[in-house]
Amino acid sequence: VTGGAPPAEGGFVLGVDVGGTKLFGVVLDQEGSVVAEARAGTPQVGSHRASNLASREPPGRAIVEAVGGLVLQLITHIEHPDARAPLGVGVPGMLDRDGVLRFSPHLPDAVGADLKSLLGEQLRGCAPVVENDANCAALAEHTFGAARGVQEALVVTLGTGIGGGLIEEGRVTLGAHGFAGEIGHMLIDTSGPPCPCGRNGCWETYASGGGLGRLAREAAYAGRLNEVVVLAGGDPEDVRGEHVTRAAQDGDVGAMGVMRKLGWWLALGLVNVTAVLDPELIVLGGGLAEAGECLLEPTRGCFGDLVEGGSSRPQVKIVPAALGERAGAIGAALMARTNPMGVK
Amino acid sequence: VTGGAPPAEGGFVLGVDVGGTKLFGVVLDQEGSVVAEARAGTPQVGSHRASNLASREPPGRAIVEAVGGLVLQLITHIEHPDARAPLGVGVPGMLDRDGVLRFSPHLPDAVGADLKSLLGEQLRGCAPVVENDANCAALAEHTFGAARGVQEALVVTLGTGIGGGLIEEGRVTLGAHGFAGEIGHMLIDTSGPPCPCGRNGCWETYASGGGLGRLAREAAYAGRLNEVVVLAGGDPEDVRGEHVTRAAQDGDVGAMGVMRKLGWWLALGLVNVTAVLDPELIVLGGGLAEAGECLLEPTRGCFGDLVEGGSSRPQVKIVPAALGERAGAIGAALMARTNPMGVK
Repeated sequence: VTGGAPPAEGGFVLGVDVGGTKLFGVVLDQEGSVVAEARAGTPQVGSHRASNLASREPPGRAIVEAVGGLVLQLITHIEHPDARAPLGVGVPGMLDRDGVLRFSPHLPDAVGADLKSLLGEQLRGCAPVVENDANCAALAEHTFGAARGVQEALVVTLGTGIGGGLIEEGRVTLGAHGFAGEIGHMLIDTSGPPCPCGRNGCWETYASGGGLGRLAREAAYAGRLNEVVVLAGGDPEDVRGEHVTRAAQDGDVGAMGVMRKLGWWLALGLVNVTAVLDPELIVLGGGLAEAGECLLEPTRGCFGDLVEGGSSRPQVKIVPAALGERAGAIGAALMARTNPMGVK
Repeated sequence: VTGGAPPAEGGFVLGVDVGGTKLFGVVLDQEGSVVAEARAGTPQVGSHRASNLASREPPGRAIVEAVGGLVLQLITHIEHPDARAPLGVGVPGMLDRDGVLRFSPHLPDAVGADLKSLLGEQLRGCAPVVENDANCAALAEHTFGAARGVQEALVVTLGTGIGGGLIEEGRVTLGAHGFAGEIGHMLIDTSGPPCPCGRNGCWETYASGGGLGRLAREAAYAGRLNEVVVLAGGDPEDVRGEHVTRAAQDGDVGAMGVMRKLGWWLALGLVNVTAVLDPELIVLGGGLAEAGECLLEPTRGCFGDLVEGGSSRPQVKIVPAALGERAGAIGAALMARTNPMGVK
């Protein structure tokens, strides 16, 4: 069905983005247009099965089976489904250059898995490209999206956690071991909130969807989000990031205050990555970026206040992603097509 | 004397490293050996002259004259001093790709100066290469020192502040505007100690020579450095980083405690840069790195404890620089010789 051989001229490519809660897959045609898409839930081995049963399951097995199922759905959309279509898979976490998931706070059941080999077996001998999900998103945004034509860019995925993909000299940078761009796990305060990575005070505990939830509940308990609490059903504990985002977009003053606070935290980490990399453009993607200007505007303002050199340096543009939730899957497909072109 | 033309085959190159307190210059022969060196104090315009006089002085003028003087000393060592010897100058701070110093916490009098043009005028028409000092040090350590042959490395200069030079794919990376590697100004705690850059809680306020001085005085006032205080003359306020470093090397328990604390802060920032870049090697240079194992050993230990993925990832080697205080000047000379080879 899928194969490791170079794609035939004009062939389709498949891309699957493995998220902490859902899988999303696309079929790209030769122009890079999405001709089909499919989705499924991410199997939650650790949390839904008895741990003694889970421990018997080899790491990554459930994910690999789920990706295999999604691929079968996707290829029904290809005209000649027996043709070899290259497959790229984007995965959150620290994936090494051999396709082994070395560490993954948001996909703990797959840690240690040789995902490249397991997917190859599952899909009868194909040799998929397996890559960090944010690196995939960066390739997609650089090829078709908001970072098109930019030589030095940072693509940030704001979801449950924070991922990063680095564009340098017009190519995605992977680092020495494949782990570049793990920006969500810069330490902001080691006595801060616990992070799924096992440490405390990572940037993503402040500036991701999870961080927004925490800021929102703090504000709700402090009585600053009364209308949002009503929207959420009356209990401050039930206030979610989505409630705040929606209320802020509708002009709720308390919710806008929370979004400004989130923008400050977001800017703090962006300033630190900027100190290291000096990008000309920062692209904000992922579910949280869909909040739009109620998040982007305070983020830009705080970035300008916090960045070293302030107005003495050329402005770093901060823009929303163009490809939305599809970026990771499109980029995964592009990884399979262009690898190693466009990627260091 | 010096010139912008390509160096004659087998020619000498000059390099000058402009520090916050001193200038250091070298002459390199065709093999890259240092055949002569010279030093001078950095003119302290702002602090030693009346401010109304200082404000009449164009920015960078005093520095440029001092560099010119050092170059005259250096060329007396060249056999044919009328030959055109290319000149490279390393400067701390945010130097843009046109040679204008856009921002510099440790060289405030030169901010805004077009150093490339001013040096060219001062040296009768030469076209020197002007580059960030830590980028120069990185090029030197990569060419002749501790990062030789390494494709992905981070070179850190630990002095009054902290500078960084990034080696990616075996070349020094400058970023979109020339400001990559400003790692000392990652924000660790925005309510932390004031930084010369005008903000608060930059990494360099904790982990540089200045940071060591602060930690040392805190420990001295807390009564944990009694023997060091005696060494310093009896007043805790007079305790300097050098006193603590020397005492730690001699096995003083209190001083070793301060060095461990400094190692923790140093590791924290290195972990954050590693999250962004994923280097395989970190080289620690600058005056503070001359403390040696009493700093390196706790830094390596804390790095292992703090880095994302811990033992699940390949170890990042942390080693001392090989070229000592000469790295910046040697690298500046190499910038003039090899530009743009070896540099992105």
